[in-house]
Amino acid sequence: MKIVLDAMGGDYAPQVTVEGAVQAARDFAFDIVLVGDKDIINRELKKYKDKKAKQHISIVHASEIVEMAESPTTPIRKKRDSSIAVAVNLLKEKKVDALVTAGNTGAAVAAAVLNLGLLPQIKRPGIAIAMPTLKEVSLLIDVGANIDPKPEHLLQYAIMANIYSRYILKKDNPSIGLLNIGEEASKGTELIKETYKLLSSQSGLNFIGNIEGRDLFSGRIDCIICDGFIGNIGLKICESIAETMVAFFKKEIGKNWLVRLGAVLCRPAFTALQKEVDYAECGGAPLLGVDGSYIIAHGGSNAKAIRNATKVARDFVDHKINQHIVGEINQ
Amino acid sequence: MKIVLDAMGGDYAPQVTVEGAVQAARDFAFDIVLVGDKDIINRELKKYKDKKAKQHISIVHASEIVEMAESPTTPIRKKRDSSIAVAVNLLKEKKVDALVTAGNTGAAVAAAVLNLGLLPQIKRPGIAIAMPTLKEVSLLIDVGANIDPKPEHLLQYAIMANIYSRYILKKDNPSIGLLNIGEEASKGTELIKETYKLLSSQSGLNFIGNIEGRDLFSGRIDCIICDGFIGNIGLKICESIAETMVAFFKKEIGKNWLVRLGAVLCRPAFTALQKEVDYAECGGAPLLGVDGSYIIAHGGSNAKAIRNATKVARDFVDHKINQHIVGEINQ
Repeated sequence: MKIVLDAMGGDYAPQVTVEGAVQAARDFAFDIVLVGDKDIINRELKKYKDKKAKQHISIVHASEIVEMAESPTTPIRKKRDSSIAVAVNLLKEKKVDALVTAGNTGAAVAAAVLNLGLLPQIKRPGIAIAMPTLKEVSLLIDVGANIDPKPEHLLQYAIMANIYSRYILKKDNPSIGLLNIGEEASKGTELIKETYKLLSSQSGLNFIGNIEGRDLFSGRIDCIICDGFIGNIGLKICESIAETMVAFFKKEIGKNWLVRLGAVLCRPAFTALQKEVDYAECGGAPLLGVDGSYIIAHGGSNAKAIRNATKVARDFVDHKINQHIVGEINQ
Repeated sequence: MKIVLDAMGGDYAPQVTVEGAVQAARDFAFDIVLVGDKDIINRELKKYKDKKAKQHISIVHASEIVEMAESPTTPIRKKRDSSIAVAVNLLKEKKVDALVTAGNTGAAVAAAVLNLGLLPQIKRPGIAIAMPTLKEVSLLIDVGANIDPKPEHLLQYAIMANIYSRYILKKDNPSIGLLNIGEEASKGTELIKETYKLLSSQSGLNFIGNIEGRDLFSGRIDCIICDGFIGNIGLKICESIAETMVAFFKKEIGKNWLVRLGAVLCRPAFTALQKEVDYAECGGAPLLGVDGSYIIAHGGSNAKAIRNATKVARDFVDHKINQHIVGEINQ
């Protein structure tokens, strides 16, 4: 398994990307190609003594970086020697099996669409993230690739999510829900009402109808379909409220020594909860629909998240997700 | 202060609406007009012994109920003797100062718009909810009145939210943020980009630009502007994730007696947190822009939420919010 990693992408790159690469090489024996400024990457690599892991790591130089605030078309139009542009080319030329990036999401999506292209019949790609719920993980698509989709895009997201859930998340006949303000078919925007009709008439999908924001974490819905605008904002709300609750709780704990003692005793439960809501555990989200195995990690990824994103890439390749999409989208 | 309460509206009506009315009459000496089936309301009222409170309560009969799943136009087109339709008429005829309902939100909004009408110049009403944050409360508008708004609607929401924040939430020069997928002015849907321009050029508003989902609970933004589709879904996500975290934590606690002991000691912190995220504390959200003092409570309201919603109604009337809107929207 050979994975190209955009070493310069992400809020804490290249420190965490290089550290994550070393962990992935050590733990899974993946061959990792780090793309970015070779001097900087070499300096980072020197921090690690693990020779065996480092044998799995190679570097491809790229002189430019797409910053987080730059426009999505930057790697295509302006910075053709940026780490993401060079990494995408390696994937396109099939010199690697998969790509992982924690850089500018808009730029990562645009570089994939314009350089790799889409799978046959696919109109738009979507980012599908596996979210923890009260039961198993649920898949939320799209969380930011396509902020102004058409109904047929959302239908294709459902078809791709269904495939991903079956092969990767091992769900039999996964349930599909459409995120809306109410359960009735008559509710919602024109986009949602049209999508509802398309999903209802699509055979082979276990479409259970509209679902509400409160159903997101019930675990009752395996694949949740939404536009990338609300998906992105919703995801960030989730992260933020979890952090806010923890911060509020810590403030309350500080007020009283007995409560502080209680919090110490509760630590195993806090740790378990923290692990559950930690996006680093999931690592990365596939960009479904592009012609390549393409994993997008959180901009704030730490080394563990980068390491785990390479596992997502491996599973994506091993389970031939793109072949299944091509096979099923034509039906 | 005379407040009309839709006694039949809400998931737990009329039990909780009548109980909430008794509490409001007892605690604040408001005169409460309960609208709904008079036999059913009288039966509920008999449960309470508080004569003094009950002297403040009167009943106006309405023979029909708009169910939660019915279409928004039901009270106007089909059920003209529904509790919400009759309650709106009392407000329109100025027989009461304000209205509170926990019923079907779509129907409540439609009845207000079509029967009361909008304030001069206002194009669409918006529901503004006060949300707990790490600092003070923030106002989120719109959370479901207008799921397909135009940029000028969102601009008017910002102007009305600014007024409400100043007079009710006592904020000096409240900051206004536009909910988006990134902070840059170039990001987002056409709706958001156009709204950004309108807000930037509007004098008298402390517009701080785009904000992301993760900023919602920072307390840094006093008024958060969004369309009703994402506002409604975002709000329900917030409720759901808070409940999910609590449920997960309880499950973890059960695994070990030492952790259970810790949880008992931590109870004051849990109670404080629960109070902070309990929507019953806030009670209700004003429907800003309609020609009347109109408070929408959560469908799942308990008696405390109904009681507190009457306080929101009182503040709305006392601070002459609608007069201020009329005065400032023309400028």
